[in-house]
Amino acid sequence: MAIRTVVWGENVHEHKNRRVAEVYPQGMHRTIADALNADPAIEATTATLQEPEHGLPAERLARTDVLLWWGHAAHAEVKDEVVERVAEAVWSGMGLLVLHSGHFAKIFKRLMGAPCNLTWREAGERERLWVTSRNHPIAAGLPDHFELPHEEMYGEPFGVPEPLETVFVSWFQGGEVFRSGLTYKRGAGSVFYFRPGHETYPTYHDANVQLVLKNAVKWAHNPAARLSDPTKAPNVPHDKALEPFEKWGATLHEAGEEGFR
Amino acid sequence: MAIRTVVWGENVHEHKNRRVAEVYPQGMHRTIADALNADPAIEATTATLQEPEHGLPAERLARTDVLLWWGHAAHAEVKDEVVERVAEAVWSGMGLLVLHSGHFAKIFKRLMGAPCNLTWREAGERERLWVTSRNHPIAAGLPDHFELPHEEMYGEPFGVPEPLETVFVSWFQGGEVFRSGLTYKRGAGSVFYFRPGHETYPTYHDANVQLVLKNAVKWAHNPAARLSDPTKAPNVPHDKALEPFEKWGATLHEAGEEGFR
Amino acid sequence: MAIRTVVWGENVHEHKNRRVAEVYPQGMHRTIADALNADPAIEATTATLQEPEHGLPAERLARTDVLLWWGHAAHAEVKDEVVERVAEAVWSGMGLLVLHSGHFAKIFKRLMGAPCNLTWREAGERERLWVTSRNHPIAAGLPDHFELPHEEMYGEPFGVPEPLETVFVSWFQGGEVFRSGLTYKRGAGSVFYFRPGHETYPTYHDANVQLVLKNAVKWAHNPAARLSDPTKAPNVPHDKALEPFEKWGATLHEAGEEGFR
Amino acid sequence: MAIRTVVWGENVHEHKNRRVAEVYPQGMHRTIADALNADPAIEATTATLQEPEHGLPAERLARTDVLLWWGHAAHAEVKDEVVERVAEAVWSGMGLLVLHSGHFAKIFKRLMGAPCNLTWREAGERERLWVTSRNHPIAAGLPDHFELPHEEMYGEPFGVPEPLETVFVSWFQGGEVFRSGLTYKRGAGSVFYFRPGHETYPTYHDANVQLVLKNAVKWAHNPAARLSDPTKAPNVPHDKALEPFEKWGATLHEAGEEGFR
Repeated sequence: MAIRTVVWGENVHEHKNRRVAEVYPQGMHRTIADALNADPAIEATTATLQEPEHGLPAERLARTDVLLWWGHAAHAEVKDEVVERVAEAVWSGMGLLVLHSGHFAKIFKRLMGAPCNLTWREAGERERLWVTSRNHPIAAGLPDHFELPHEEMYGEPFGVPEPLETVFVSWFQGGEVFRSGLTYKRGAGSVFYFRPGHETYPTYHDANVQLVLKNAVKWAHNPAARLSDPTKAPNVPHDKALEPFEKWGATLHEAGEEGFR
Repeated sequence: MAIRTVVWGENVHEHKNRRVAEVYPQGMHRTIADALNADPAIEATTATLQEPEHGLPAERLARTDVLLWWGHAAHAEVKDEVVERVAEAVWSGMGLLVLHSGHFAKIFKRLMGAPCNLTWREAGERERLWVTSRNHPIAAGLPDHFELPHEEMYGEPFGVPEPLETVFVSWFQGGEVFRSGLTYKRGAGSVFYFRPGHETYPTYHDANVQLVLKNAVKWAHNPAARLSDPTKAPNVPHDKALEPFEKWGATLHEAGEEGFR
Repeated sequence: MAIRTVVWGENVHEHKNRRVAEVYPQGMHRTIADALNADPAIEATTATLQEPEHGLPAERLARTDVLLWWGHAAHAEVKDEVVERVAEAVWSGMGLLVLHSGHFAKIFKRLMGAPCNLTWREAGERERLWVTSRNHPIAAGLPDHFELPHEEMYGEPFGVPEPLETVFVSWFQGGEVFRSGLTYKRGAGSVFYFRPGHETYPTYHDANVQLVLKNAVKWAHNPAARLSDPTKAPNVPHDKALEPFEKWGATLHEAGEEGFR
Repeated sequence: MAIRTVVWGENVHEHKNRRVAEVYPQGMHRTIADALNADPAIEATTATLQEPEHGLPAERLARTDVLLWWGHAAHAEVKDEVVERVAEAVWSGMGLLVLHSGHFAKIFKRLMGAPCNLTWREAGERERLWVTSRNHPIAAGLPDHFELPHEEMYGEPFGVPEPLETVFVSWFQGGEVFRSGLTYKRGAGSVFYFRPGHETYPTYHDANVQLVLKNAVKWAHNPAARLSDPTKAPNVPHDKALEPFEKWGATLHEAGEEGFR
């Protein structure tokens, strides 16, 4: 069965900014989904901020293997309850790819527990991405480096926790560097942050970028059944202990009672 | 100068439960602070839930090198704005030690971005902590293992991100194990989770536990000046780029404008 | 195409010790290979210490996707040149699973750069393995914990580098704990250490252990083409630089010359 | 007491290459040691390849808190027994800083278990180091970035294991990037790799580079007593088990016997 993938797009600048509308006439989410669907192993649909529940009701997330997230101008409009729902979906095993300005999306900050800040410059400069982890599944089929002729610059220090693995580091024409491909695990879910993708440049039409996204969808996909309750904290009563022992002392809780949260 | 340390205690069960009151007649936070103050390199004071702003106004956090956090029954009563303030203090360089049931404290879940759940049993069983990282500063002066005769059990899987380092792993009489000493970095701040410390047992009177806490305060202390704005994302205008280059294409932002958040 | 897997067995105690011969009449390597071959996605063969080049000539390693290594009494008899060959195969992308007493195998110490030591006791005690990373591919299909009624004890501190991920932690009847499932990456190759497997007990006949090994073979398998020279350090001459700049100063090397190694 | 620091220098090019002799008339090791000694917390001496046992007899290593290693042309001349001795000293708690071309030193390859390869170009280009971990002790007192006007280029992919923390990433004028400050732990010892330092350029006269080295010495210093035997693997006999249980089955070893290695 193909990997059920949802590309979430904020879908704001495509309607407000002429340049963005020219580059992505059907929306960035559509361009990304089309690129993913060119791979028969992936079946990608889209969701946007403007749909009810931002297009991410619980039933849909339950049927989503991997979610991609692109947002920029309207992070604050994303409802907290949807953010929590996505976080729980990740913890239960859904993969998540966070793209470019999504570094400040509520869901990314929620999962990182860190400021996720950086320096930036919007001047259409050259970016060159170097693979730092040879043969990493996310870099499969890529050369040792590839270029994007015009991109927004993001510079270090990038305010994220130390990743599991650093897959890409970017060189910028203006003199900065950035760890532009980072992997994380949160609960049972795999998370990948990928830097490129400023809306005024045709980044998501680039073949190497599309290959990274296809690879990352496969990497983030966990075929195991989703955890039914990723936040439960079950009491194991004394009489169900795997090794018998004599109970000692006073207790705050009755046997089998819920703990404090 | 001594390490300015604040021990935050929820201070609820000490007043509601006779057993807890017997073990910690002046409150758990007081016992912990006294233990820390036995080390001349540490100067510990206390703060509690019941004080205005839970005893953690911005000015006090600004003068705090390391904060210890013990909570259990009243996690939900901690104000979100204080949680955010503590998170920003950590990101700016303050050390944080989270104790026992603090695994479900808002501040720990906030910084981990993960469910932080576990299994548990309150039956006064034997816990044996094994050092898994020899000569780690947090384990300085400890034997290879030490025992607590009566503790609450916490069992794996522990729903936290992979740590920087695993310092202790616990064995429980009833058959479970737990990664009971874990280090993290969030922004410029060091974070240590330490498992033992159920309120009905005299854990914080134990000499080895006290040594771990003293070591951890020193480990978490960063003598560097605190970052003044740990979340800023400064624009680097094109004309201030370190390497000159020709600007290209349309921009969403005016030069020097604030970015979207 | 099935994952081309080789199970390397030292094959010594099976011939010297009656108990081992009873439990593994065809050798431990054969029992493990048979278990793997029950999965149609895996095609496992065996190699042993006694064969020429220990059964691991360069041509065979080049066609091996994943290698399993079990050794104990004869670590010292493994030729250094074969160890280096295996290390280079790992760096070029071959997966490696190191089993039990293989913690002291030359190849494991070579790849870890650490003492790899531990404490141990051979008394047939109960081991219980807890999954510490929910839904990790290596733990797919396993319950939260499983037991081995009789195993050798390995205890912390385990002298290995901090892993990428801790997948299992073991509880022992005699009071110790051990991080019994650890993942690493070395060059392009994935490495998994799995603790159980003392030769006098029927551990490799256990269904859960067999499931872990099958999962781990799939996890360690990298379908990308093997790197042709995983240790090369190519010179990038000044006139081939991606960004032109003016050369400065004296040089030790002629253009295109090999570097010092 | 000051941190007892030894700067090991290969001391070859200083005598063979006029340019190197001009930049470091007393040897690179002397320049580095002098810079460290400007900090009263550090007491640095030197050792060189040409001395008996390369200046690193066992007694000296036993009294060394932190060792710095610079080598390039003569890696192969370093005796394997000295390399093993240094490795064991690290495992027992000595700090180690590996500099520049030391990425191919036997001791670094030994501790990494990885190829440690990279791409390179000797053309005197500009290097700019960015701090990627704000307020890391090794970056104390540094600005967010600093420049070296002329350096050798090292490019990704750098064939090392994923580090504990990435402290610096370098930008190069010719278009490459490099993770130029990486931390590791091996046994009880802390290891830091720092990229800059080509012998034909005055890098070790740079104030920022000197500050990094001073910081790194302090970071790598572990005041705990050195482990007496960092590779021992003690048997814990059945009758000394912390929790009593009934022995089961046959054994390979007699009680208290040494294990296989």
